[in-house]
Amino acid sequence: MKVGIINVTGYAGAELARLLYLHPEAQVVSVTGRSAAGKALSQVFPHLWALDLTVTEDLGDVDFAFSALPHAASAEAVAPLVRRGLPVVDISADFRLTDATEYQRWYGVEHPAPELLPQAVYGLPELHRAAVRGARLVANPGCYPTGALLALAPAVRAGIIQPDVVIDAKSGVSGAGRTLGLVYHYAEANESASAYALDGHRHLPEIVQELARLWPGSPPPRVTFQPHLVPMTRGILTTCYAPLSDGLPAGEGAKAAVRELYEEAYRSEPFVRVAPEPPQTKHTWGNNLCLVYPTVDVRAGRLVVVSCIDNLVKGAAGQAIQNMNLMLGFAEAAGLDQLAVYP
Amino acid sequence: MKVGIINVTGYAGAELARLLYLHPEAQVVSVTGRSAAGKALSQVFPHLWALDLTVTEDLGDVDFAFSALPHAASAEAVAPLVRRGLPVVDISADFRLTDATEYQRWYGVEHPAPELLPQAVYGLPELHRAAVRGARLVANPGCYPTGALLALAPAVRAGIIQPDVVIDAKSGVSGAGRTLGLVYHYAEANESASAYALDGHRHLPEIVQELARLWPGSPPPRVTFQPHLVPMTRGILTTCYAPLSDGLPAGEGAKAAVRELYEEAYRSEPFVRVAPEPPQTKHTWGNNLCLVYPTVDVRAGRLVVVSCIDNLVKGAAGQAIQNMNLMLGFAEAAGLDQLAVYP
Amino acid sequence: MKVGIINVTGYAGAELARLLYLHPEAQVVSVTGRSAAGKALSQVFPHLWALDLTVTEDLGDVDFAFSALPHAASAEAVAPLVRRGLPVVDISADFRLTDATEYQRWYGVEHPAPELLPQAVYGLPELHRAAVRGARLVANPGCYPTGALLALAPAVRAGIIQPDVVIDAKSGVSGAGRTLGLVYHYAEANESASAYALDGHRHLPEIVQELARLWPGSPPPRVTFQPHLVPMTRGILTTCYAPLSDGLPAGEGAKAAVRELYEEAYRSEPFVRVAPEPPQTKHTWGNNLCLVYPTVDVRAGRLVVVSCIDNLVKGAAGQAIQNMNLMLGFAEAAGLDQLAVYP
Amino acid sequence: MKVGIINVTGYAGAELARLLYLHPEAQVVSVTGRSAAGKALSQVFPHLWALDLTVTEDLGDVDFAFSALPHAASAEAVAPLVRRGLPVVDISADFRLTDATEYQRWYGVEHPAPELLPQAVYGLPELHRAAVRGARLVANPGCYPTGALLALAPAVRAGIIQPDVVIDAKSGVSGAGRTLGLVYHYAEANESASAYALDGHRHLPEIVQELARLWPGSPPPRVTFQPHLVPMTRGILTTCYAPLSDGLPAGEGAKAAVRELYEEAYRSEPFVRVAPEPPQTKHTWGNNLCLVYPTVDVRAGRLVVVSCIDNLVKGAAGQAIQNMNLMLGFAEAAGLDQLAVYP
Repeated sequence: MKVGIINVTGYAGAELARLLYLHPEAQVVSVTGRSAAGKALSQVFPHLWALDLTVTEDLGDVDFAFSALPHAASAEAVAPLVRRGLPVVDISADFRLTDATEYQRWYGVEHPAPELLPQAVYGLPELHRAAVRGARLVANPGCYPTGALLALAPAVRAGIIQPDVVIDAKSGVSGAGRTLGLVYHYAEANESASAYALDGHRHLPEIVQELARLWPGSPPPRVTFQPHLVPMTRGILTTCYAPLSDGLPAGEGAKAAVRELYEEAYRSEPFVRVAPEPPQTKHTWGNNLCLVYPTVDVRAGRLVVVSCIDNLVKGAAGQAIQNMNLMLGFAEAAGLDQLAVYP
Repeated sequence: MKVGIINVTGYAGAELARLLYLHPEAQVVSVTGRSAAGKALSQVFPHLWALDLTVTEDLGDVDFAFSALPHAASAEAVAPLVRRGLPVVDISADFRLTDATEYQRWYGVEHPAPELLPQAVYGLPELHRAAVRGARLVANPGCYPTGALLALAPAVRAGIIQPDVVIDAKSGVSGAGRTLGLVYHYAEANESASAYALDGHRHLPEIVQELARLWPGSPPPRVTFQPHLVPMTRGILTTCYAPLSDGLPAGEGAKAAVRELYEEAYRSEPFVRVAPEPPQTKHTWGNNLCLVYPTVDVRAGRLVVVSCIDNLVKGAAGQAIQNMNLMLGFAEAAGLDQLAVYP
Repeated sequence: MKVGIINVTGYAGAELARLLYLHPEAQVVSVTGRSAAGKALSQVFPHLWALDLTVTEDLGDVDFAFSALPHAASAEAVAPLVRRGLPVVDISADFRLTDATEYQRWYGVEHPAPELLPQAVYGLPELHRAAVRGARLVANPGCYPTGALLALAPAVRAGIIQPDVVIDAKSGVSGAGRTLGLVYHYAEANESASAYALDGHRHLPEIVQELARLWPGSPPPRVTFQPHLVPMTRGILTTCYAPLSDGLPAGEGAKAAVRELYEEAYRSEPFVRVAPEPPQTKHTWGNNLCLVYPTVDVRAGRLVVVSCIDNLVKGAAGQAIQNMNLMLGFAEAAGLDQLAVYP
Repeated sequence: MKVGIINVTGYAGAELARLLYLHPEAQVVSVTGRSAAGKALSQVFPHLWALDLTVTEDLGDVDFAFSALPHAASAEAVAPLVRRGLPVVDISADFRLTDATEYQRWYGVEHPAPELLPQAVYGLPELHRAAVRGARLVANPGCYPTGALLALAPAVRAGIIQPDVVIDAKSGVSGAGRTLGLVYHYAEANESASAYALDGHRHLPEIVQELARLWPGSPPPRVTFQPHLVPMTRGILTTCYAPLSDGLPAGEGAKAAVRELYEEAYRSEPFVRVAPEPPQTKHTWGNNLCLVYPTVDVRAGRLVVVSCIDNLVKGAAGQAIQNMNLMLGFAEAAGLDQLAVYP
């Protein structure tokens, strides 16, 4: 199975290459990247020294493609591939929102290939596994939506919370990619935490879209999503808050009930674990797990759910491979069965 | 002015010593600490080399005392001093809650000196400056309550939010003190973020008590306070969320209105700044500022306020000195007029 | 192939469990640990959740054992196993020094099983591969000696340096293990670097012993080994300095000659790479590589070699598995063929 | 006393502004910076909010100037000021090397004002205090030379080491300044250590020049200087190695003798301390101290000296103010009498 990675020169691209190195069925045969074209991949990323690949401008002959391009550029590159039948996972935001108008509002450009939107599947396997299996074009979810939706979905489906949600997410710096910026300069980022995108982050409409699907019949939920930058390389810690509606026992019993609900919901999921203790992001370093810890603030009558992912794995490259595995009929965990590197 | 520090061997104690070194009126003449008694202070903390002090078991002859003991031990040590008229700032939690029953519920011990509670003043100068000025016993606020209350007070006072608040706080590791623990072991804490105290943190009743004072006539506000550990040494980033009630213009205008409200509220405060851009915790490294950034999530109709403090300064030792200055009639900023160390 | 890990509760033990999870031939069936006996392994190390193992007091029925006990305790535990013919890799220092008197001088205890020393093989495969293949008891090298010896061996063997060496090593904090200490407390370790063991580190005699073997006929080399603690979790960066003797071209040509010498020496090594550019420790995060960068300070006539390893992998658990693979006739890289996790 | 800072927009410039804020005699009245001209200083550096200054293109009317421009640009800016008699401390490398040819060899440009070199004084007060006192143009030493020279000077002067020195320095990332680069990108720099400038660092000739002055009559010493990048913001840890010559007692007595020698040498220095225990860089965070720890590797017959500085303070801005104080007859420690911020 010959696989290509479009734009291997960012962190998501590099992480795809790293993870696919252990994949039993798929082999990376082509990697592209504009600025680095002509260089050995190991020159761009010395940790990928064992991959004997040269970065090229154009994708060669492949059976499957991942795009790790930025939005807009990605849809442009991916559209012709999809049209000629190549199965594709797009890691960019281009095919996540079903509504091209909403896309334009948040991304500031006209959608380059709106006619493909109807066939794109939002690739969060825990919500849309069957659809991913039949898809040719999968939109890989954003890192924040992955952490937030896996934290909230069982509660929403079970109807135990009101559609009034606060999502407070803390991300490591690699989430911002490899592009340089003062805010990611070591001396300024280390030993510092900050909030950003206080006027609205692009992952908000994606979260709202998917929560609305889980709350059919209701008006769109009232969602505040606030991302923060914390001084670590990988990892997203998401804390979600929502007032309880009905259906849970009163008092302390609510905690056990919520926990049971989540365990039931994720019992057969290969990459979601309901953690027995509040998890650390580092428990997912380098692997595809999402750890979820649900509880109830009994005093305030609020659901509180914490989730942890590695933003570059379950939040990007790992989930993309999970989607590929589903699309191609491989074992869902193929190539992803590594334990986190800890400490 | 001869000052003593009871239990100088923790971070709050050491930070008191560091800051008072520059104080024009107060001079540290006595420092205590059980385990380190007999050692030179510079042996315990090499960065305090310039202070020629020996750690003793008992407080000597002083005009003013800070206690940096743990709760319960602090009240026991402080009570006799207060009774003989020595002015004291207690950095522990012992005199923060006005209700001894509530204290016992959260701290698991009977209050050692409940008869002193009526005269203790909650030492958040921005809320209780006049009372601090006249006090002999000041309870220095917790680090989290300091960040949360300064973020919320102007909005509560102005009546623009409903009494339904989520406070999501991210703290550096020094907040847990100098006592060893696996969760603060470098290899486990670095590159990792986690939530803790999901069953309720001891700073919650303190936050609720003070918010309730600001919302008189209402039932106690519904507050969820969730602390997190992030991999940095100093700093607390607090993000507060509350649904708007009335009194703000609709739409984008709400942002400017909220900003103006906060600027007005803090105009003459020496240690609170309404930041023009979302602040980093590192902008307060080593100094006594609280940076506040208020805005509105217009889509969700929610107030969002971010605040930054150095947990060891405005969250502990710096605020304690600010309180001492007020109690003794010194300039409020005496000894605290240093800029943050950045980067 | 049933494998046991004695003392799984430290970092080397946990790393053995993590890496062996991917091993095609060996399966961990027994893990011991005194304090944690009776607990699930996933309770001690949540990142090992996929391993369904309970920590026990005694090693069960296994075909191969790793000991990750501290020195002295390890020899005591390992000796009976070796006597009854079980092949063992000992990660402790107990069987590294061939001379029991030297052992006692540095470790302060009488050697618990000196009669086993003659059969123990120093398990640095790049120096002693043939002997490891035939061994029943392999002493896994220390983390510092691994980085230093791989940096120096080709130069020593080629006779291009004088036996007068300075080894300046910078280690991440996990090298000190999981035992708590103020110097590894996050707030004190982060943003700080220091030298330690200035009176002599226990890895010195091990380095001297192995260098002396490479310099036969000479008096023991004059070696200064100085370790440092730097604020990172994993990784050792070692910089070695030695005056050139003869055999290299003068001037800038010496650089290319040294490089060629090293490339030749390590051409067929699966886990040593001569890096084309000065490497970062992070290029080895989580994997078994040693990256070596040799050059010459032409002005001073000195060889300078930099090496990078992950102290928990090539410096401990990974190398132990490499040794097991050799002892048991598996492919040398079995279970170790993962790329570094970067960034 | 009106002071100006030329190029305030880098870290050295910002640190000058921070430290001078507490200076009792000098007041910053003018700050320049090309790209930021017209902005408020607090916009560029929010932690300098209390300084009501606007960044300008040209230096206004001042009595004293610091230049924090890059090399070459600095000499060009400073030369006219010096010619019209303004006392200046130049933080760049432009006036450190006495030989314009050597300057050109290392910096790749012709010296812009070689005629000023004879009057420039190398501003390491511990070596050249008297000359600094009488100077109008002081070349502030590089950060690495400061740490290395203060570690070595007493030993060289006392004649106890051979002129054959290895200097292994570990620097925090702020040493590279505020200019962006992949190697300083948080995700790539954190949790990683590396060596750089293996073909020779520009601070080498400066170190050699000053060591040669201390070793008159000898041929220039054979010096290998190797810098490393470690993941911390501030701080340089320097470890120096040199074979002993004569003059020290044999065996363990050498350690005490060396220590006494250093204590004697630095007894009256306000900013050098011989540390009783091996120091951490963090013990100097934000202040002007150099901590020195001398010892002897008795086995190898080598002097080993460790020093710690904050590269932005004693390694740049603090030392520049110390020089200003000497030039203008202020107390040498004026404005610099702050304790390190720890932890």
